[in-house]
Amino acid sequence: MLIEMKNSALSQIGQRTPEPPISWLMQTALTRPRLISLAAGFTDNPSLPVAETRAVLNQILRSPKTGQSALQYGSTAGDPALRRLTAQHLQKLDGAHGENYPPERLLITSGSQQLLYMTAEALCDEGDIVFVEDPTYFVYLSILQSRGPRARGVRLERDGLDLAHLEKILTSLKRSGELRRVKLLYLVSYFQNPTGVTTSFEKKRGILKLLKQFERAAGHPIYLLEDAAYRELRFETVAAVCDRRFSDGMTNIRRSQTAATSYGEKSALAVPGAAERVIYAGTFTKPFATGARVGYGILPEPLFTTTRHIKGNHDFGTANLLQQLLARALASGAYAKQVARLQKRYAHKARVMKLALEKHFPSAVEWWEPAGGLYFWARLPKHIPTGVKSKVFQTALKNDVLYVPGELCYADDPARRKPNHEIRISFGNASEAEIREGIKRLGNVLKKFYDLPNL
Amino acid sequence: MLIEMKNSALSQIGQRTPEPPISWLMQTALTRPRLISLAAGFTDNPSLPVAETRAVLNQILRSPKTGQSALQYGSTAGDPALRRLTAQHLQKLDGAHGENYPPERLLITSGSQQLLYMTAEALCDEGDIVFVEDPTYFVYLSILQSRGPRARGVRLERDGLDLAHLEKILTSLKRSGELRRVKLLYLVSYFQNPTGVTTSFEKKRGILKLLKQFERAAGHPIYLLEDAAYRELRFETVAAVCDRRFSDGMTNIRRSQTAATSYGEKSALAVPGAAERVIYAGTFTKPFATGARVGYGILPEPLFTTTRHIKGNHDFGTANLLQQLLARALASGAYAKQVARLQKRYAHKARVMKLALEKHFPSAVEWWEPAGGLYFWARLPKHIPTGVKSKVFQTALKNDVLYVPGELCYADDPARRKPNHEIRISFGNASEAEIREGIKRLGNVLKKFYDLPNL
Repeated sequence: MLIEMKNSALSQIGQRTPEPPISWLMQTALTRPRLISLAAGFTDNPSLPVAETRAVLNQILRSPKTGQSALQYGSTAGDPALRRLTAQHLQKLDGAHGENYPPERLLITSGSQQLLYMTAEALCDEGDIVFVEDPTYFVYLSILQSRGPRARGVRLERDGLDLAHLEKILTSLKRSGELRRVKLLYLVSYFQNPTGVTTSFEKKRGILKLLKQFERAAGHPIYLLEDAAYRELRFETVAAVCDRRFSDGMTNIRRSQTAATSYGEKSALAVPGAAERVIYAGTFTKPFATGARVGYGILPEPLFTTTRHIKGNHDFGTANLLQQLLARALASGAYAKQVARLQKRYAHKARVMKLALEKHFPSAVEWWEPAGGLYFWARLPKHIPTGVKSKVFQTALKNDVLYVPGELCYADDPARRKPNHEIRISFGNASEAEIREGIKRLGNVLKKFYDLPNL
Repeated sequence: MLIEMKNSALSQIGQRTPEPPISWLMQTALTRPRLISLAAGFTDNPSLPVAETRAVLNQILRSPKTGQSALQYGSTAGDPALRRLTAQHLQKLDGAHGENYPPERLLITSGSQQLLYMTAEALCDEGDIVFVEDPTYFVYLSILQSRGPRARGVRLERDGLDLAHLEKILTSLKRSGELRRVKLLYLVSYFQNPTGVTTSFEKKRGILKLLKQFERAAGHPIYLLEDAAYRELRFETVAAVCDRRFSDGMTNIRRSQTAATSYGEKSALAVPGAAERVIYAGTFTKPFATGARVGYGILPEPLFTTTRHIKGNHDFGTANLLQQLLARALASGAYAKQVARLQKRYAHKARVMKLALEKHFPSAVEWWEPAGGLYFWARLPKHIPTGVKSKVFQTALKNDVLYVPGELCYADDPARRKPNHEIRISFGNASEAEIREGIKRLGNVLKKFYDLPNL
């Protein structure tokens, strides 16, 4: 009945939001039942806190009073008790004083992803510039592409962002008059997705100092958005446990931890002056339950207020039932127990992957062992591409093993050729047996290509 | 340590997203403990399905298999079983055949609000035009203001949109060359927020026909976004029950319903050709539990695919635990039972409000009795303004009763003066005693002003 139109009615955003590359990978996985996916960022199934969640939900829903409150709308910013508990939790992670962790500037979100999206909305117009690590979290690149600002990659070293490179880019943008387009720097600060790299506290301090130096020329604040999604999935605290289970040492992991540093590097919130410039994005999704998606952010004013208004338009508040679940889990200690359990579990799975990599990967492949999070990062020689159309990827697929090609994690940048010889491999969702078998299959594929002079 | 900058780094969107007027109302409510709020769109607390939710969640979390699945990430489009059940549910509501209700084009969202937001993103650039009812849902006006398209009000009659007025505006836009900026018409089709008006199926068909006529000149599709948030909160099906409880007749409610029409007006999805032009936004939030926020939409292609990608950037999928809860509630019949219970409850509360209005409001105040939903709409004489700065509003506040001023529900429009003499009053959240007392207080306030010749 209705005519087919030649043009679509899609907006600029609509036209700029294609299928994310990762969706294609996931769909591919579904079509091959024998396939072992080391690509997904899903978390470990057997460790999910099923009994704990059931117990907490029963507590909430046992009485009409707490039950009705959990099943009613809440406020846009989030449940007051959860905001207070989350602020305390962050303060404890940083071993710091309270002033930089105000519940009043803490926003509860539907996963930390929603905070990444809304801060991009609140800060960035089309053509603005956002600094990202090179490589970075690929969904953040999708957000920027859809919304219109340009991503500008800053080199990543083993201890985090390359400050000299950041300064060089800032200086060059100042010279070209583009500094006013720079709005923020996005940093996945702990056990980064995709590389596993953690940025040191000193570097966070250095980033804030550098950004500040260029603010006057920019004419407005330049924010540091610290995405700490993987922060609590650290292995350090369970190093002693692992050492008892495995004969060989965990060389990349410091063994003796004082109580003060057992939580690892402090967040950028602990840098003096952070209250005005640091956006901290955290989540309970990965350290507790991925199906109960609750994230949060601490934001400077006026950004906090603006982002809260934007959230009012998105959904006027994250599902109250999930917020009550997390608030009770935090208050009762169930959350802390689950995190400790996950840390052990992932430390063990990372260990399984490390042993498999040592056994099956060609010895010349360089791979980075993480001290937390869900990912190993491996680098092949430059003449062996790993992208979705590459022979390596296609052969791996034929052999029923899937990884994330490294090139998906790099921003477009005319100043450098996009590296295309790396891979991200995850031990998050695969079982121990799948990790062993998956790495064996992938190693066998790589061996076929490794000795070839050129492809 | 960090310098204070004169300019903010906020984007255009950030600068265009002020505090929503309703937040101010809600905060005002909190500062007066004796205040009765007839303003909030919250739902009835005692009817929330606490025991039912607990039972379903226990079923899910009793076994590791279903428990782990519910606590793991799902896919961006939503749980396949919930998508299928939702499509069947809609088809049943329309008493129709399946082809216009494809699970493949059904997207699960965090409340229907998220769908309203994302379709605005997918379709509208700054300066585009969106038709809305005059008056309309005020949060939708906030979304448009933030995102940049212009809202254009179309007159509302007691049986829905004024088609002659819509045609007049379309013709005028064609003449001025602005038709290419028109992207969609937003219609709150059942028991509208704020007026309680339901748009007839014939009018929906008429709207689609009119939009189609102007598409060629627009050069692209013009969509009808049907927001059916209140659809299932209808009183018709329980009229007989109410009639037994109250001596006076329910004059605005048809008494005898055949099975085929007991669900009321069909949605625009039942119009031939709807698959290409109708965006249907529905929700389980209001008819089941507001704290477990699950909404959904059926969208035409390519809009479905684009909106799914946008959702991937927002949050890559609504919390799986809540989706599993709704899927089980739908499949087991717990959902249908809860809806039937709510229908009775709201029919009763509407009745309580009606009797209070008859008793306490000045007899010359015109008010519209709804056949469903959560709201009454009352119209004062034009010389008595009701806005937040008006004497009526301020006196009501002093007497501890709160309503939503009608002017908040009107789009800016240079072609007509914004009506400012109406009020929205809700029986959703207030108890029966509060409804009686609130309407009494408000009636006494109105009486003070009603006999004055001018203010």
